[in-house]
Amino acid sequence: MPEYRAIRARHSFLELCKNPDAATEVTLQPVERLGVDAAILFADILLIVEPLGVGLTFGVGEGPVIQRPVRSDADVARLGPIDVESAVGFVFDTVARVKKALAGRVPLIGFAGAPFTVASYIVEGGASRDYLHVKRLMYEAPAAWQRLMEVLVDATARYLNGQIAAGAEAVQIFDSWVGALAPADYRASVLPHMKALFTKLTPGTPAIHFGTGTAALLPLMREAGGDVIGLDWRVDLAEGWRAVGHDVAVQGNLEPAVLLALPPYIRKRAQAVLDAAGGRAGHIFNLGHGIHKETPVEHVKALVDIVHELSDRR
Amino acid sequence: MPEYRAIRARHSFLELCKNPDAATEVTLQPVERLGVDAAILFADILLIVEPLGVGLTFGVGEGPVIQRPVRSDADVARLGPIDVESAVGFVFDTVARVKKALAGRVPLIGFAGAPFTVASYIVEGGASRDYLHVKRLMYEAPAAWQRLMEVLVDATARYLNGQIAAGAEAVQIFDSWVGALAPADYRASVLPHMKALFTKLTPGTPAIHFGTGTAALLPLMREAGGDVIGLDWRVDLAEGWRAVGHDVAVQGNLEPAVLLALPPYIRKRAQAVLDAAGGRAGHIFNLGHGIHKETPVEHVKALVDIVHELSDRR
Repeated sequence: MPEYRAIRARHSFLELCKNPDAATEVTLQPVERLGVDAAILFADILLIVEPLGVGLTFGVGEGPVIQRPVRSDADVARLGPIDVESAVGFVFDTVARVKKALAGRVPLIGFAGAPFTVASYIVEGGASRDYLHVKRLMYEAPAAWQRLMEVLVDATARYLNGQIAAGAEAVQIFDSWVGALAPADYRASVLPHMKALFTKLTPGTPAIHFGTGTAALLPLMREAGGDVIGLDWRVDLAEGWRAVGHDVAVQGNLEPAVLLALPPYIRKRAQAVLDAAGGRAGHIFNLGHGIHKETPVEHVKALVDIVHELSDRR
Repeated sequence: MPEYRAIRARHSFLELCKNPDAATEVTLQPVERLGVDAAILFADILLIVEPLGVGLTFGVGEGPVIQRPVRSDADVARLGPIDVESAVGFVFDTVARVKKALAGRVPLIGFAGAPFTVASYIVEGGASRDYLHVKRLMYEAPAAWQRLMEVLVDATARYLNGQIAAGAEAVQIFDSWVGALAPADYRASVLPHMKALFTKLTPGTPAIHFGTGTAALLPLMREAGGDVIGLDWRVDLAEGWRAVGHDVAVQGNLEPAVLLALPPYIRKRAQAVLDAAGGRAGHIFNLGHGIHKETPVEHVKALVDIVHELSDRR
């Protein structure tokens, strides 16, 4: 959105995350401009790793870079617990300001990265294609992997509970890259830690559990926890819902690239997602992953209107 | 392998593909050094697109680059049929030479890229993360997409049949990146073309149909065709086999990153793959995708020995 780009022209990405006024403004933009049914907190999943001293930076036009990746027993042993309140207190400020500005119009969804996905950045040193350092750590240094997960589970729970205390009405946990794992690796090296994380969350606030490329992991993700399981676009929504069980809610799953096409085509594909949900209660319409930066804003606005119109018809 | 690097020091990648003597030597290296149970033709899936005039080059240390990507109706309209014999006759020469050198020791598997995966390179201009140009062409110019698929199906069938005529005892079709698609997009825009391709293949030669990230696509890939369905590592082999049906063979699916760990760990994971196959006839042990370049050759040799030993025990 041009509104977002105007703010970014004045602030680096990290500055923007750390400035509650500006972060509040950015959080509200999609609500004002697009008419979506919830506000999603503007923040980054890596903010909580800054105090680990791994050297987090965001290059211009690139993803995050971790200057001192954590790859060995010794690297993990050096990590202390994260003082979440002093590390990301500014996020809690943003949550409180957004809540006030929203004045109950729509709910606010907080979020955090899941421990595996956050670990993937700090072990690989940034974004990755094959996650070879992470997998090697899992396979060859399971005790170090376990300790790393425990540090991140603890910090993530406190981070999300702080957002809830500040007013977030739901939280979403992004295990964005967990689909790189074999199901056996998820079961052995991720599932117990996700279970621990969900157990530590403040009861009564719905948690959305999302990943991509997870078609074969969905029953395990359900077992790990979450009130809502996020489905990416690479699974049929009806099949995905069957896989996690109809006693849990699902979120998804329009193919984000569909938004590059014109509105009549977008309508057809949005209808197909709603049809796959079959009018069942507990479906939250969403894209199957983040929006591509090439997407015209008018197409997103058109999608919001289309979904409102088609859902009201039911 | 150092043997391969020695040859590559003297030839560019494309030169190597086009030199039947050198390509034969490279094809034989894993058979001699590792003791695998089949030879896999050394070639590249993009060789057949050279005559389309899209400007294929292989940069040093990078993937392929297509200088004139095909992105519109007009671009597709310009494409003529591919004269396979004159474009890739050198591959057929390599097949004949390899067959002679193998003298029946192990079978030779030929291969080609599937039309979607080959199209993904020529539409995107090289490797891609999000396949946005491909998807946009599918959504907004379905007639152009269909024509592009037809050109590639026709060329791929002739390419594989030429390999079979020259002596390949099986062929593998790599739809490596098809896992980027929603199941509905696979069904509408890929499945009919894969069916057409399998129908055109010389009867009596087994065909292996492989892709990655395909957990949700497996039943559709089975419907498209193939005597063997390749499973990547992101699906449990027992589940994947159930999804495609036990009346078809499967190939797979050790997580390739396991080969970075030491042989005792490799043995444990190889055993788990064999256990998932349950001793059922029609399982071809393989990695779940290509080998990572960081993999020590001794670990691959250890895996071959381990699988031979564990399989003989059954």
